[in-house]
Formats: sequence, C-alpha cells, structure tokens
Amino acid sequence: MVSVDLSVDLGEGALPAAQESALLELVTSASIACGFHAGSPSVMRLTLEAALEHGVVVGAHPSYPDREGFGRVELALPPARIAEDVLYQVGALDGLARSLGTSVRYVKPHGALYNRMAVDHECAAAVCDAVRSYGALVLLVPAGSVAVDVATELGVDVATEVFADRAYLADGRLAPRTMPGALVTEPAEAARRAVGLAVDGCVPAVDGGTIELEGNSICLHGDTPGALRIAEAVLSELREAGIEVAPFVS
Amino acid sequence: MVSVDLSVDLGEGALPAAQESALLELVTSASIACGFHAGSPSVMRLTLEAALEHGVVVGAHPSYPDREGFGRVELALPPARIAEDVLYQVGALDGLARSLGTSVRYVKPHGALYNRMAVDHECAAAVCDAVRSYGALVLLVPAGSVAVDVATELGVDVATEVFADRAYLADGRLAPRTMPGALVTEPAEAARRAVGLAVDGCVPAVDGGTIELEGNSICLHGDTPGALRIAEAVLSELREAGIEVAPFVS
Amino acid sequence: MVSVDLSVDLGEGALPAAQESALLELVTSASIACGFHAGSPSVMRLTLEAALEHGVVVGAHPSYPDREGFGRVELALPPARIAEDVLYQVGALDGLARSLGTSVRYVKPHGALYNRMAVDHECAAAVCDAVRSYGALVLLVPAGSVAVDVATELGVDVATEVFADRAYLADGRLAPRTMPGALVTEPAEAARRAVGLAVDGCVPAVDGGTIELEGNSICLHGDTPGALRIAEAVLSELREAGIEVAPFVS
Amino acid sequence: MVSVDLSVDLGEGALPAAQESALLELVTSASIACGFHAGSPSVMRLTLEAALEHGVVVGAHPSYPDREGFGRVELALPPARIAEDVLYQVGALDGLARSLGTSVRYVKPHGALYNRMAVDHECAAAVCDAVRSYGALVLLVPAGSVAVDVATELGVDVATEVFADRAYLADGRLAPRTMPGALVTEPAEAARRAVGLAVDGCVPAVDGGTIELEGNSICLHGDTPGALRIAEAVLSELREAGIEVAPFVS
Repeated sequence: MVSVDLSVDLGEGALPAAQESALLELVTSASIACGFHAGSPSVMRLTLEAALEHGVVVGAHPSYPDREGFGRVELALPPARIAEDVLYQVGALDGLARSLGTSVRYVKPHGALYNRMAVDHECAAAVCDAVRSYGALVLLVPAGSVAVDVATELGVDVATEVFADRAYLADGRLAPRTMPGALVTEPAEAARRAVGLAVDGCVPAVDGGTIELEGNSICLHGDTPGALRIAEAVLSELREAGIEVAPFVS
Repeated sequence: MVSVDLSVDLGEGALPAAQESALLELVTSASIACGFHAGSPSVMRLTLEAALEHGVVVGAHPSYPDREGFGRVELALPPARIAEDVLYQVGALDGLARSLGTSVRYVKPHGALYNRMAVDHECAAAVCDAVRSYGALVLLVPAGSVAVDVATELGVDVATEVFADRAYLADGRLAPRTMPGALVTEPAEAARRAVGLAVDGCVPAVDGGTIELEGNSICLHGDTPGALRIAEAVLSELREAGIEVAPFVS
Repeated sequence: MVSVDLSVDLGEGALPAAQESALLELVTSASIACGFHAGSPSVMRLTLEAALEHGVVVGAHPSYPDREGFGRVELALPPARIAEDVLYQVGALDGLARSLGTSVRYVKPHGALYNRMAVDHECAAAVCDAVRSYGALVLLVPAGSVAVDVATELGVDVATEVFADRAYLADGRLAPRTMPGALVTEPAEAARRAVGLAVDGCVPAVDGGTIELEGNSICLHGDTPGALRIAEAVLSELREAGIEVAPFVS
Repeated sequence: MVSVDLSVDLGEGALPAAQESALLELVTSASIACGFHAGSPSVMRLTLEAALEHGVVVGAHPSYPDREGFGRVELALPPARIAEDVLYQVGALDGLARSLGTSVRYVKPHGALYNRMAVDHECAAAVCDAVRSYGALVLLVPAGSVAVDVATELGVDVATEVFADRAYLADGRLAPRTMPGALVTEPAEAARRAVGLAVDGCVPAVDGGTIELEGNSICLHGDTPGALRIAEAVLSELREAGIEVAPFVS
C-alpha cells in the first residue's frame, strides 16, 4: 500500500493557535520553529503540547539566526557554524520535548537555509553532520535536490519533501512566490497534485510538462489562503485514492 | 575520605581561551554559558571540546535572556517562562554535547537567576521542574539556600556550591562585589578557606564570626585577579589536606 | 475651547496594516515602537510613512529591551541604562523620521517601563534626563502619576495620558487586564468616558466612585476588540460635545 | 599644506577602555559601533564621552544586524532594508551624541557591509540614500571603490579611506587577513606607508608594484598587534613630513 506523510510548519507566529490546532487534526508531522527565525521557548512548548495531544510526530525546523528576515535572507555562514546552529536549535527543541515525555524525530531546515542546502553540497554536508552526530534523527529535504545525494553519501537517514500547494518550475524547483500562480489555492487542484505526487511521483510544471519527484512527505503551508480547506481536501482525496497517510518516521 | 568538586564558569567570553584551558587542567567540573547571557553555539562547542579533552564534567549554566546585562539584571519572569528558558538552554548545550559523544550532567543557573532561586521558592521550584522533567541531571545551587530545601522537597538530585575566592556576610550570603574585601585574591587565603569548607564545612564571615556551609562543589571565579594561581593553591592545599578532588556528579 | 489629543500605539505588530491605517484616519498622535519590544527599522519606516500621510504627530514608544515579553516584564535596570536605552530608541526612530522629512515630537515609554515610571521617582528622572538632553520633545506619562511631578521638577515639557477604553481602580491606576470589565469594549461607554475625561477631567472607578484625572491625550488601544468602532464613537462624541481634537504637541 | 585624517574604529569591545583612550589621544576621527555588530547604548555613550573629551570627531559605524558574526558575514539584505538599518543606527548614535551636546558627523559602514558597498552599486546607492536623507553627514568609503563613484553621482558628500597597517593587493583591494604579511605590524613601515599615502597618494602592493589611492582618512586598526606604537609612529612621521593631521569633516 502506498503511504505518504502530511506535514505543516508550526510555531512560527504565522497562524492563530486555533488554526494550528485544526491543522494538527489533519497532518501526521509538524516542523516546529526553534527560536532563530521565529518562536520562543514558550511558543515551542505550547506547540509541542498541541502536537503531542494530536499524536503528531514532531521535527525541528532550524533556521539561520535571522528573526528580522524570518530566516529568508541568505547568510553566508561557514559550514561549521551552520552545523553548530542546527545542533543548538535541535537540542533546544528536544530539551522541551523531553520535558513533555516525547522527543524530536526529524530535522527540516527552514527558509534560506533549506534553499541553500538544496543546491550547496557543503551546506548540505554541514547539516548532515549535525543530524548524524546528534543521532536518532531523520533529515527532511527537498525531493530531487543535492541534499538527498549528500545525505545518502554520508549515511544520514533522509526523507524527501514535496509540495501540493505550490507550483513547480520545469527544472523541479518551486515557482517563486512572486510568480502569478505560484500558490495553488484551489483545494481540488491541490488534492489532485497530492495524489499525483503520492501515487505516480509526478506533478505538472508551469510550462505544461511533468516533473518526476519522489516525495515521502507532502508539506502544506499553513499560511496559504484557505490552508485548512486545502488540507482537508488533500487528506480526503489521498484516502479516497487508497493511500495511507502516515508519518515518514516510523 | 572527604571529597569535594572544584568548578569554574566557562564560555562566558570573560577569559582568553588559553586561560580557560589552564583552568580546565585544575578543576573537575565546568559550567558552560548557553547563549542567553553569553556564549554562542560556536563558543559552546569549543568550550565543550576543551572540557572533554581535559576529562572535566560539564554542566549547563542557563540565565535570564539578557546579554546586555550579562544575566545580572533581575527579570520578573513568571515561573513557567523560567522553566521553559532553562529547558531550552540545557537542551541546546546538550545537543552540542551529544554531537561530541558526551552529555550535560548538571545545571547551575547564572547571575540574577541564581540569586533569585536562592531566596524565591517559586523560582526555585520552576528550575527544579525543568531539571527533573529533563531527567538525568543534578541541580547545583548555593549552599544553605532556599533552593536546597525546594529541590529536596521536589525530589530533585541536588548539590551545593560554596566559594573560596569570595567573602561571606554573617547571614551566609556572598558579600557584594562592591564591598571592600569581597574578592579573596590571596591564593593562600583562598586555599585556607577551601580546606575549611571541605573539611569542616565552615568559613569565616566578614564580621569575624564563622558560617557553617555544606558544599559539594567549590566554585572558583575565572575572572578573579590571579585566578589561575588561586586555583593552583586551592587544589594543592586540598590534596595536601588529604581531600579528594572529584566531580560531584558520579 | 477645550482641546484633547487622541492617540494610538502603532508599529507593534499587533494590528494588520489596514487597521493601523484606519486608526490613523481618526487619531491625532501615534506612538511608534522602536525595536526593543516590537518593531524593526522596516516597520518603523512604514509606520512613519503612514502617520505622515495622515498628518498625524509621531512620538517614540521606547521600551525595556524585551521582545520575548513584549516589554511587559519588569527589568531591574539601573537608571543610567534606562536613559541610554531611551536615547538610543528615540534617536533611531528620529533618524528614520528625519529621512522622511519629519521628526519625532514626543516620547511615551511602553509597558513595564511606563508602569515603573509612574511610581518610581528614580526611573522617571532617568527618562526625564533622556528626554530633556535630547531636546525639543514632550514626555507623555500617565495622568496623576509620580512621573508628572518629576518631569515638572526637572523642567521637562510634560503631557498626561488617560484611557477611555480601560477601567480605572479607585486609586487612579488602571484595572489589571485580567480583572473582569477591565476592557471597555462598548463604543458608547468609551465615548462617554472620553467626554467626561476631556470636559470634566474625571472618570468613574470600578468601585462606583469618581476619579479626577487631568489628561492631555486620550489613548485608544488598537488591540481592544472593536477598536475601530470605539475610536469612531469617541471622536464623534468628542466633536459633538464641542471639544477640539488636536495634537497635544503644538 | 597637505592634510590627512587619522581614524580608528571604537566601541566594538575589541580593546580595553584604557587603550581606546590612548588611541583617542592620537587620532582625529572615531567610528563608533551602533549595536548591530557590537556595542550597546551604554558602550556607545561611554565611547562618545571619551571621544568628546579628546576633541575627536565622531562617526557612526553601522553594520548588518549580526552580533554573532561581528558583522563580517555577508547578508543578502535588499537595498531598502540596508538603508533602513543604516538610518536606525545613525539615528541611535546621534540620539546619544545629542544628549551629550555633540553630533554624529560622518558614516562609515562596517565589515561585510563596507566590503559589499565597495563593489555593489545597488548597496552603495542604498547607503548613500540613507546618508543623504539624514542630512549633514559625510560618507566614508574605501578609496578607489565603486562607492566613491556612486556617492559622487548621487551628490552625497564623500570621503575616502586608506589603510597604513594593512597590505594591499595589486588590484587595490586589501590583502585578506589570512594572507601572510597582510598586517603591517612594524611601526616604521606603517608610518612610511602613511606618508606615502598622504603625500603621493600611493602605496606598495604585495606584488612589488605601486597602487594609486586618494585617501582623505588613514584608518588604524586598534586591534593590530602594537596598535598604539603604530599610531604614534604614523602620527609623528606625518608631522615630520609636514603633513597636517586634521579631521576630514570640517
């Protein structure tokens, strides 16, 4: 039976608590901000508690240290500092998780760091080093990116992420948010894409072609307009298609 | 055989790396700043590596979030936030420690938080909650303070700290740094005090009297003038007196 | 003719830009966050531009350095640091204002600093020193507070602030937000209070009595439920009562 | 009569107060950190007071927001944010200066921002916009860089900076700190270079050739080993050569 994970990024201050809670009803994994681009010890604890209550697997969502730019500004940090910053953030979230009787299961970098890791071998290796040396973690990276190869080479347990609510360019990268049509806001369309990704491993590109993308997890952006209805449509359509929705970490 | 621990606070940017390294030759425990009053992921990793190299036990040295005031300003944070901030910092340091194959063994709050915990039952309980829920940690607190009682009540593994390079008031509190004679800078005098604390559990007060203080760990301030010579004298005198110098965590 | 100022606190990330803009249509003064509890250089510039567009007088809204606690946590900072922090923030906002061809006209401390200044002579004097040494500024403080006396003694140009959307205790302080009825959310009631404050200099207290409060400026909280309708009712009722609504700085 | 300015970067936490004070005896301008890479309101005020006491002209030394990396990490900030960040920092320092009866006279960007401005037209234009819209300021930039041309085009009052204690590459850029011989630590050699720069507008390059550089200000790094003796030698040799040492701002 085909299985796929549904995930959201939480604890970023972008959503009201009620909406975060509603999303947690639908997804199987939650990536939680660790204070470097958003969040705080208090917000992290509250978000962990909400995830725990809904039986959702939690991952760390570390970022460059850049609250002002929400982690979206590229910082030319050397690899060693990237690894240290990732370990600091993962440990901090795990400390709070541990106090609640649970633990961080995976790491998904955020924003500019996520994008850099997708194309920059050295950056990807630094993140892999951090994840491997911490132990007992899966690394979640963009499907089809350099980071998948680097993680595989370095023996890091890796999972891949695809998006049902974002348009893809012909080369497999996400269409920039500023491009018209970059956000897929029609629930039925997002659901169709989700099923295509889960069953066939492919998704239409903006140029009319088709891209092959092996994804273990479908990420839904909580701040896409109508995010909740999109999530409901995706979940329902996946189940309709006989696809198991389950965490990518076992 | 009587046994006592010798400790220093490190990774606070107060000492050149060479001097931190020299102190690590002499002590048995090191309390490492976690980024809230001083330190950074990079400095924390370097300090952990140095401690590891010298076989010194490492503890977390969490603080109020106050880099500007070096954690010395009293912040009226509610207990829940104190617990969250402590867990975040302990986890962050432990994440870096874990990547180096070691782990944080104890927690010693810093500055204004350390002082508040010594007298404020609610604050002490918040720190104890954090330490207990994290698990596998000892809490290091001022000898003779409220925090000892609170930790004992709450079933938290607790150790007590005394100072050989600082004068004590008649009521058992440290003489404020601004008081003449507050710093004990004469190595022989500090060594004498250390032996008195370790063997007899008492130390002279500024008023000429004697204070009883049960201490498991003698803290040496790395930034006291002549800190290294003081540490050498204390260590040598303790050994001369037949006292074992060993970590307070086993 | 009786005259009173209407003001709001802006640039704190608490309101959508459209709502800030709508409030700027109604008020005569805007107190802008300076980055220490909320805001950023970008947000400050945008808020200044919006205020300028609406012909609203701008003031600085400096805070303790406490983004995590939104400036609401009491920090035991020494007076000298308070004065330095205020000057830094006022200057920073004024730098951005200057680049837009305008300037900061007044200073109204935020949160815990505002509350401390209301009762702590030393703190009020530190803020007064900062305001006076900067020059060409009015200090806006709680009506009936210690800060009014201190500013007068020290020769600082001072204006007083009252609230139409908050309940008052019998001793003249604001009812804590946690007390039932602390927020006045009924537009007609807030308008009635505003007129009473402007015309008679008095307002009902929670115990049924009446408090005398000389206020030059009526502050409306942008985040009170229904803030916009409250502001509209207050403005309309003040005009109906023949009261001029005009900035307190000339 | 040939005239040149001698400057240092201060308030960065790199030097003991006594050494900053000794340098202020020798130089004519001081560029003061504004809190984004180093410094704080307290340190800024102390540094301003020291400069004022020595009759030294003060400039703002704004940076990317990056305390962790001391402003040396390249941040891909958009031009609008650079301008806003510069205005915030200049205003903040000027606010403290104003409280002391003086004012900021020039702006010299720091670290990665200084380097980017030297080669990136758009970045230089953003800094120029900030400086021009603030008014009454001179912009200090690397001699021979893109920033000189941009400032001239945009009508910004500009001055140029050269270095007597650093080696130059054949293309006119500074030799990276990691290159052997990058730091000129021999006082006589630094003094010879200073005179060459001031009188002939040229300096030897590492390849044996000569570079022409028109500099209005010679910057001395306070953290170069033997900085004080270098500064003394430079000052004495410049005077010996009949060169007036005076601020570049009039």
